[in-house]
Amino acid sequence: MDFAYDAKTEELREKLLRFMDEHVYPAEATLERELAEATDPWARTPVVEVLKAEARKQGLWNLFLPGEHGGGLTNLQYAPLAEITGRSPHLAPEALNCAAPDTGNMEVLTMFGTEQQKKQWLQPLLDGEIRSAFCMTEPDVASSDATNISTRIERDGDEYVINGRKWWSSGAMAPNCAIFIVMGKTDPSADRHHQQSQILVPRDTPGITIKRGMHVFGYTDGAHGGHAEIEFTNVRVPAENLIAGEGEGFAIAQARLGPGRIHHCMRLIGMAERALELMCKRANERVAFGKPIAAQGVVQEWIAESRVRIEQARLLVLKTAWLMDTVGNKGAHTEIQSIKISVPAMTEWIIDKAIQAHGAAGVSQDTPLADLWANTRTLRLADGPDEVHRMSLAKRELKKYL
Amino acid sequence: MDFAYDAKTEELREKLLRFMDEHVYPAEATLERELAEATDPWARTPVVEVLKAEARKQGLWNLFLPGEHGGGLTNLQYAPLAEITGRSPHLAPEALNCAAPDTGNMEVLTMFGTEQQKKQWLQPLLDGEIRSAFCMTEPDVASSDATNISTRIERDGDEYVINGRKWWSSGAMAPNCAIFIVMGKTDPSADRHHQQSQILVPRDTPGITIKRGMHVFGYTDGAHGGHAEIEFTNVRVPAENLIAGEGEGFAIAQARLGPGRIHHCMRLIGMAERALELMCKRANERVAFGKPIAAQGVVQEWIAESRVRIEQARLLVLKTAWLMDTVGNKGAHTEIQSIKISVPAMTEWIIDKAIQAHGAAGVSQDTPLADLWANTRTLRLADGPDEVHRMSLAKRELKKYL
Amino acid sequence: MDFAYDAKTEELREKLLRFMDEHVYPAEATLERELAEATDPWARTPVVEVLKAEARKQGLWNLFLPGEHGGGLTNLQYAPLAEITGRSPHLAPEALNCAAPDTGNMEVLTMFGTEQQKKQWLQPLLDGEIRSAFCMTEPDVASSDATNISTRIERDGDEYVINGRKWWSSGAMAPNCAIFIVMGKTDPSADRHHQQSQILVPRDTPGITIKRGMHVFGYTDGAHGGHAEIEFTNVRVPAENLIAGEGEGFAIAQARLGPGRIHHCMRLIGMAERALELMCKRANERVAFGKPIAAQGVVQEWIAESRVRIEQARLLVLKTAWLMDTVGNKGAHTEIQSIKISVPAMTEWIIDKAIQAHGAAGVSQDTPLADLWANTRTLRLADGPDEVHRMSLAKRELKKYL
Amino acid sequence: MDFAYDAKTEELREKLLRFMDEHVYPAEATLERELAEATDPWARTPVVEVLKAEARKQGLWNLFLPGEHGGGLTNLQYAPLAEITGRSPHLAPEALNCAAPDTGNMEVLTMFGTEQQKKQWLQPLLDGEIRSAFCMTEPDVASSDATNISTRIERDGDEYVINGRKWWSSGAMAPNCAIFIVMGKTDPSADRHHQQSQILVPRDTPGITIKRGMHVFGYTDGAHGGHAEIEFTNVRVPAENLIAGEGEGFAIAQARLGPGRIHHCMRLIGMAERALELMCKRANERVAFGKPIAAQGVVQEWIAESRVRIEQARLLVLKTAWLMDTVGNKGAHTEIQSIKISVPAMTEWIIDKAIQAHGAAGVSQDTPLADLWANTRTLRLADGPDEVHRMSLAKRELKKYL
Repeated sequence: MDFAYDAKTEELREKLLRFMDEHVYPAEATLERELAEATDPWARTPVVEVLKAEARKQGLWNLFLPGEHGGGLTNLQYAPLAEITGRSPHLAPEALNCAAPDTGNMEVLTMFGTEQQKKQWLQPLLDGEIRSAFCMTEPDVASSDATNISTRIERDGDEYVINGRKWWSSGAMAPNCAIFIVMGKTDPSADRHHQQSQILVPRDTPGITIKRGMHVFGYTDGAHGGHAEIEFTNVRVPAENLIAGEGEGFAIAQARLGPGRIHHCMRLIGMAERALELMCKRANERVAFGKPIAAQGVVQEWIAESRVRIEQARLLVLKTAWLMDTVGNKGAHTEIQSIKISVPAMTEWIIDKAIQAHGAAGVSQDTPLADLWANTRTLRLADGPDEVHRMSLAKRELKKYL
Repeated sequence: MDFAYDAKTEELREKLLRFMDEHVYPAEATLERELAEATDPWARTPVVEVLKAEARKQGLWNLFLPGEHGGGLTNLQYAPLAEITGRSPHLAPEALNCAAPDTGNMEVLTMFGTEQQKKQWLQPLLDGEIRSAFCMTEPDVASSDATNISTRIERDGDEYVINGRKWWSSGAMAPNCAIFIVMGKTDPSADRHHQQSQILVPRDTPGITIKRGMHVFGYTDGAHGGHAEIEFTNVRVPAENLIAGEGEGFAIAQARLGPGRIHHCMRLIGMAERALELMCKRANERVAFGKPIAAQGVVQEWIAESRVRIEQARLLVLKTAWLMDTVGNKGAHTEIQSIKISVPAMTEWIIDKAIQAHGAAGVSQDTPLADLWANTRTLRLADGPDEVHRMSLAKRELKKYL
Repeated sequence: MDFAYDAKTEELREKLLRFMDEHVYPAEATLERELAEATDPWARTPVVEVLKAEARKQGLWNLFLPGEHGGGLTNLQYAPLAEITGRSPHLAPEALNCAAPDTGNMEVLTMFGTEQQKKQWLQPLLDGEIRSAFCMTEPDVASSDATNISTRIERDGDEYVINGRKWWSSGAMAPNCAIFIVMGKTDPSADRHHQQSQILVPRDTPGITIKRGMHVFGYTDGAHGGHAEIEFTNVRVPAENLIAGEGEGFAIAQARLGPGRIHHCMRLIGMAERALELMCKRANERVAFGKPIAAQGVVQEWIAESRVRIEQARLLVLKTAWLMDTVGNKGAHTEIQSIKISVPAMTEWIIDKAIQAHGAAGVSQDTPLADLWANTRTLRLADGPDEVHRMSLAKRELKKYL
Repeated sequence: MDFAYDAKTEELREKLLRFMDEHVYPAEATLERELAEATDPWARTPVVEVLKAEARKQGLWNLFLPGEHGGGLTNLQYAPLAEITGRSPHLAPEALNCAAPDTGNMEVLTMFGTEQQKKQWLQPLLDGEIRSAFCMTEPDVASSDATNISTRIERDGDEYVINGRKWWSSGAMAPNCAIFIVMGKTDPSADRHHQQSQILVPRDTPGITIKRGMHVFGYTDGAHGGHAEIEFTNVRVPAENLIAGEGEGFAIAQARLGPGRIHHCMRLIGMAERALELMCKRANERVAFGKPIAAQGVVQEWIAESRVRIEQARLLVLKTAWLMDTVGNKGAHTEIQSIKISVPAMTEWIIDKAIQAHGAAGVSQDTPLADLWANTRTLRLADGPDEVHRMSLAKRELKKYL
């Protein structure tokens, strides 16, 4: 249980902190402006490309990916870096080519892709030339139970034919999103965990209709390529687009969830730190009733509680990362669920207080807080609502005493 | 302490409930569509005008306003009606010409306006022909303490000259918003509560620059005319535009706050009821892990708690209304603060749970919940953050034992 | 929905408030001393008898009981009086002969007793000459579901024979507790709600073993006659001791629960007010870091929140009382559950804060707070844990939308 | 940041866990019986002496104390052992001679005592032959600010004369409590942090009156020697009884607080684990409405939340211990405050839920839960109320951004 940052991590942290100061924070205003001026709400903003080039030049690239294709870091090494990118979640993760859902898709292709699939889709993703989407959640079923997925992927000669409706396919509204990984059922008669498969579907395949972007509170998340609702009507792709084999879809989904959740939680720690920093600065500066609001006991309670909660959450995330590195994702199951349950709620609480300390400015576009809040609130639902994870964790706890 | 709905109230409730069913709820989708299709994001939507005409025809008009100009209702009579309009807050209040800030502005003009002011501005407001804004909050000072206001209103011959910067002037982005009531200092050397004045400023007066619309968790609130940031540079209006006399601004502001707060709280009860209804329907319909989520104990707890909290909040709002009617706004000070502190927090809690019960749909544009949430969250800040009201209420409580 | 205190209520309130000031509060220290000096921990304290005599003289007697035998008050009239007695819960309720479980037992005998039963047991209870216990809860089953009760009451000739084990029989440790009402099964083969009966069992009947007094946190509640665990082994009573008929036990239990719960909640409002008063006084007096802790924002938040929560709770209790009076206990089912769920939690929260404001004194015998807290905490469990009531309330709410 | 348990820790944990199973848990019922049967409520119970002898034999003795006199463990090594003792807080800590306030007193004597003081008082304490008390808190002042202490320690020739009133002197009611360390002012005119001194006062010195034992939610904590209120009237001790020098009292107090707080928190983790275990067992066993309450979603939420909160709290305690070992108590100031703020609240929450899962049994003497709860609740006040620590922590956080 050693969570100390090793030399490599410290070196990367320093480099990344400098990159944030010199490039990312100053780019936040630019991004706002570019988004406001964009004629196509889904078009990628030039500032992101500038940041990507700079990050790659500095070796801050694909850090999320273990092994030779990426930064080669362990989860424990990556955690403090991901935390830092969470402080500017619309820019930093993508700048480092570490943004969801590309990260999960790259992991899947690295682990399960054929040589041809890697060449065609993994490489441009690793190079940050294209983006990708993961089409799993469906509007008509409780997708927290993956076995409910109803999209069909049917073999027809040398092709698979896909029919179904997906939503919350994040990133899919963006024109540079070139490839989808689609989850669906190849064999509804197989046992619960072997009915699903995952398949690569280029975004421009006939039969695909991008119906609309879903909103998150009032946000479209255009900077991230939004969250698409997509209809697949007799969409045909070559049989070799299937990832791993038929019936492997559930296993592949499980493989991506562990890292996906911990990346979210790492970044949430960073968001919480950013919110706390903003709250402290505001409290020091804003004067009401003749003294800075930093002198108000209620504000002090928010700040003390925030610090305590962040410390606890960070330690649990680090322990989870360390466990994933040492005993594997399965051995870290309880901890992965624990951070999924607790970290978004913690961050949401802190951002809420930071908003309150800012008055009306806090809910507006003048601070990043409202946007961070909406992002965070959604993570109490993404990858399954917290309630489902609590139920599952409790059942394992109860079993100890049966 | 008799909160029973009398015959007049019951009759109006029935009429209003029918109006909601027949006209308002069906218009919600129309509003969405008209907003999506609008080229000018601030243009008023046709559907609202249709509703206004119908409501006026049915006698559901200006119900908020006591006395001959309005519905002639007491606060206690109006409360259950305002609650109903809160169920569809983007349509119903304006349909009945009972939307803030017009309501407060009409009250002020009714109480303090000259005959000329009434003829020129009150009458078209009462007729729903124009809308209005109240320019009080400023970006640079803690406006929860009204004595901080820094905008200047200076006499110059037969005119007043206004200089300053305001924001969160709700409704002011809309083209049909014709008139502003601006709060500012006429005499910074007077005692704390007699420095301010309020003055009528037509929106098209030279020197006014509408700089931008403030966002609320990503929403622009375009349907309500948004929340404007406005610069006043040497804006000149005739001296007779002053409301009441110089130095009366603080008193006028106090007079509008009581009803303003209780109207918000009444509508919040309606929002909470709407959210609870949506949560129950969803829980009955949505199946996860083989049974409707209505069978989940956690969801049942949310629902039971919601019902209990709504009942308590409604009773306190009704008591407050009854007190305002019987002992006046000043006598109801503690209760007005109590509902300001507790009702938004209650409603926010319920909407949060309703969102969670809806999964990702809950944060999206597919239910009214996310929008209701943002609206509600903001009311923990509007008219002064809850913390300020708690402090003030506590001091009065503590004084009882000194 | 008229909760105003009528003339009779106001007159009784005034009289009762004076009685509290002149007799009850001064007696609190006496009670402490008498309890500390008692050789028998369950012996009744002389001070209580003095208070009883005085209260009866003043006409403050049996106010809980509607009809000719008691004060003849409605629930709405009794509520504000019960609230006042809750301020000194170890003395005032018994002083007025309004203490549980005697109240419930007197109600049951009034409604269901034969002339003989009334003469023998109701009359001395009404006169405050004896006390009584209600033996329902059993250690071995979840008694929140009354159909689980396993004690047997079997007919044998002219007698009934009782076998079983009960606990939490409040008051039964006291030597002056003369009579038990025992709930048990006369016919386990009948339908769920007709298996139980209730029967009168004198405390000195052979076969009864009072095993021990249950503790509540560290308290024995000796002032109330404690909470007994009792074994019934072949306990024989005459057949005419049965209340109403065989199989009526469940219905009788239901009849007593409504008033029982609302009496608890009324008194809890009084406890909350007492705690808030103590908190305010302490905050005004105690100096830390150079100023009274009343000047601390955090303490002010506690006080403001306490006031708001009490107001909301009181209104809901009053509404419940009014409903019970106007539409009956069954029609007030949702409201009775609502106050059972919310009022103990509210009071517990306030007492917790009052304790915190008192520092270590707050958990000790030097203020009534720790004792009030233990009492209140237990009411989240008594008459069924809150969770059961929430479940039941939610199911009714959900049914509205099926 | 390496919190792994090293070989020595693992070996001691194993030994201690076996000791708990074989000796401590079985002794809990014995302790209950011995306390119930004791004629002197403050007399030490024989079972404790049996456990002490056994623990010492096994080398489970004075583990809290670093250096040659004790177990020689670091804070990080001791933490998981203290956690285990917290599972049975009335027996295990004292059995291992690791119970407060002896631990703090032994630390103080080890660090600051003269040879004579060590021989006379430290040695019998290390041998578990006597117990001790720390007389600091006073009834009349807010003792969370140590500079408020008003007890006088005045030099008079070869003696010091002590006058003042103390309370919450834990352990001092016990006949085998032989020695007090008393904090008081030797020089009220010195600067704030040099007015106080600490002095050794044998319990049988003339002028000492043990006035009473303070209660904690009805408990006397007799098993621990209670919490005494003590009057010192012209109490004379030899001048060589002074610890360190005049004016060193505040520094000595600071030195003992760090370890004192972390020991409390370590044990609280163990209490929380015990409560969670009891909750799980009860949930698996207790049937209500036809299924074990373990199947109720609400109970599952309690359990999942408990597990998550314990994990987070334990990690923060371990980090604090590690920091104290590596950068010293001063460098770990924020973390020590963080656990003081968060761990008692966490444990209290879990015990509250465990109580609720047990129904009425949970508040009674039939489970350890009510007792654990009272103990835990008090730790939100002991060593200064949480609010004071939050204020102090927040001020340091705010300073980062000044």
